[in-house]
Amino acid sequence: MRIVVLAGGIGGARFLSGVRAHARATGAEVTAVVNVGDDVWMHGLRITPDLDSVMYTLGGGIDPERGWGRAGETWTVKEELANYGAEPTWFGLGDRDIATHLVRTRMLNAGYPLSAVVAALCDRWQPGVTLLPATDDRVETHVVVTDADGTRAIHFQEWWVRHRAALPAEQFRFVGADTAKPAAGVLDALAAADVVLLAPSNPVVSIAPVLAVSALREALVSGSAPVVGVSPIIGGSPVRGMADKCLAAIDVPCTAEGVGRLYGARAAGGVLDAWLVDTGDAGTDVPGVRVGAAPLWMTDDDATAAMVRAALELGGAA
Amino acid sequence: MRIVVLAGGIGGARFLSGVRAHARATGAEVTAVVNVGDDVWMHGLRITPDLDSVMYTLGGGIDPERGWGRAGETWTVKEELANYGAEPTWFGLGDRDIATHLVRTRMLNAGYPLSAVVAALCDRWQPGVTLLPATDDRVETHVVVTDADGTRAIHFQEWWVRHRAALPAEQFRFVGADTAKPAAGVLDALAAADVVLLAPSNPVVSIAPVLAVSALREALVSGSAPVVGVSPIIGGSPVRGMADKCLAAIDVPCTAEGVGRLYGARAAGGVLDAWLVDTGDAGTDVPGVRVGAAPLWMTDDDATAAMVRAALELGGAA
Repeated sequence: MRIVVLAGGIGGARFLSGVRAHARATGAEVTAVVNVGDDVWMHGLRITPDLDSVMYTLGGGIDPERGWGRAGETWTVKEELANYGAEPTWFGLGDRDIATHLVRTRMLNAGYPLSAVVAALCDRWQPGVTLLPATDDRVETHVVVTDADGTRAIHFQEWWVRHRAALPAEQFRFVGADTAKPAAGVLDALAAADVVLLAPSNPVVSIAPVLAVSALREALVSGSAPVVGVSPIIGGSPVRGMADKCLAAIDVPCTAEGVGRLYGARAAGGVLDAWLVDTGDAGTDVPGVRVGAAPLWMTDDDATAAMVRAALELGGAA
Repeated sequence: MRIVVLAGGIGGARFLSGVRAHARATGAEVTAVVNVGDDVWMHGLRITPDLDSVMYTLGGGIDPERGWGRAGETWTVKEELANYGAEPTWFGLGDRDIATHLVRTRMLNAGYPLSAVVAALCDRWQPGVTLLPATDDRVETHVVVTDADGTRAIHFQEWWVRHRAALPAEQFRFVGADTAKPAAGVLDALAAADVVLLAPSNPVVSIAPVLAVSALREALVSGSAPVVGVSPIIGGSPVRGMADKCLAAIDVPCTAEGVGRLYGARAAGGVLDAWLVDTGDAGTDVPGVRVGAAPLWMTDDDATAAMVRAALELGGAA
């Protein structure tokens, strides 16, 4: 059984931890295709927040309270950068984390594609799944906002971290997606997949920029593997993060049904064959899509692995 | 009174601290022209050890025990880089220090010359002297050594830090010096100087690579300001560091007289008008050079400022 999971950062990482638990119990192979739209240059370092959240979580290095960055982190470099007046000061660059960014930046500057960098970093972290960026090219999520400085597009991180998503988003743009190609290994993984899962990640800024890579979306849509989405919305609220603000920006209701319809049925130009919602959201209707329900709170790996089994069964892949 | 000082790292920094003390007492202006031959790329960061030793020392940020790097330093990033197996592991990259390297590297990669980077970093450190790199171009000290791997040229830092200068040096090469130009401000400073001092830095790997920039040496030699050297050797031993091993490599005796003759008289193709040695080395003879003696132990700023006064008097510039 080969499982491909499309995922963002923190929620995706927790979901993947459950997928891995299921895979360890069944001998399945797991490939995670991770969003790079959040990636950004900070202080000359290339930062890949979603890939790192997944890598650190699966590798046992994550700070479990924060959900991002390293456990036992210190902030000496960040404080010193602020002492130089080096902008930006609002982004969390931990000392342990910086070593990861130094290794990555050095490899990228030497000409390695991001997928090769991820593989090298995973030599240390041994995540137990094959970790791939959606693309080795630049796909960068920009957010159109209006404030006293007028209407402008800012990097996702500036909107999310600096402004805590408090500036109303008018539009999300995936800069570079029109020419980006899937990273090495992504199309092969999709071609060999027995099932594709969409993790309960933010549909607008985590999953959408993955699907914005047209050849990736095309391979998923035209492939033989069933595509099963797992709702990131439970009872009208995001499981985690600020999906509500992202959904509002594109006029999609913050409900399991709203997100299911946003993804849409594969037969109708969307991507889904099946849509797993929380038991409290049973009754969700997505035209052309088989909807199932199961408890979707990822309280621990066992609970999450049970979600994964439910998703696989719903997709006819269990 | 305008004083220009050619200097290397730790010894140069301590000497400059005394020059600054003298300047504060007399209203003199000081420009330090600092060796860049030790500069190196490590983990994608541009490191400038001598400039940093001077900047941190004069700015009050130096670790006084080690003599290099930041006081209160921590080593988290270095440990994490080692956990990735990232080479080299033998170079001391402290967390506080790394912030400096990040600011520098970002500016260099954005196209700023090193002299502009130094000026920006000094906005924070306020060293009280004008700090200039000898050149904005690449001048890199390589050391020819022979070991089980054969005869080869290695970067100065590899010889100095990794091998602790234990591999016999056969030759020093200042790669790039043949085409390097003096950094912005250096020639103006030399033209306006009332006196030029050679700090008691390593003559072979600190002062020589500064003088290897031909237009810089030419400006010094053809200028009207007296050139006064201060001996880095007291009683046959280096004040600090491993000048003995460097001098041995070029067959120069490790004495005040040996180094004075290595620099040579300006009238005979060298650079010196005067040579200040320790009182214990009185009797030193350098043909064509006025030799004076004074206590040369830089035990504190007062002692060092007294050395500086002696050097200025010897040069006829007091």
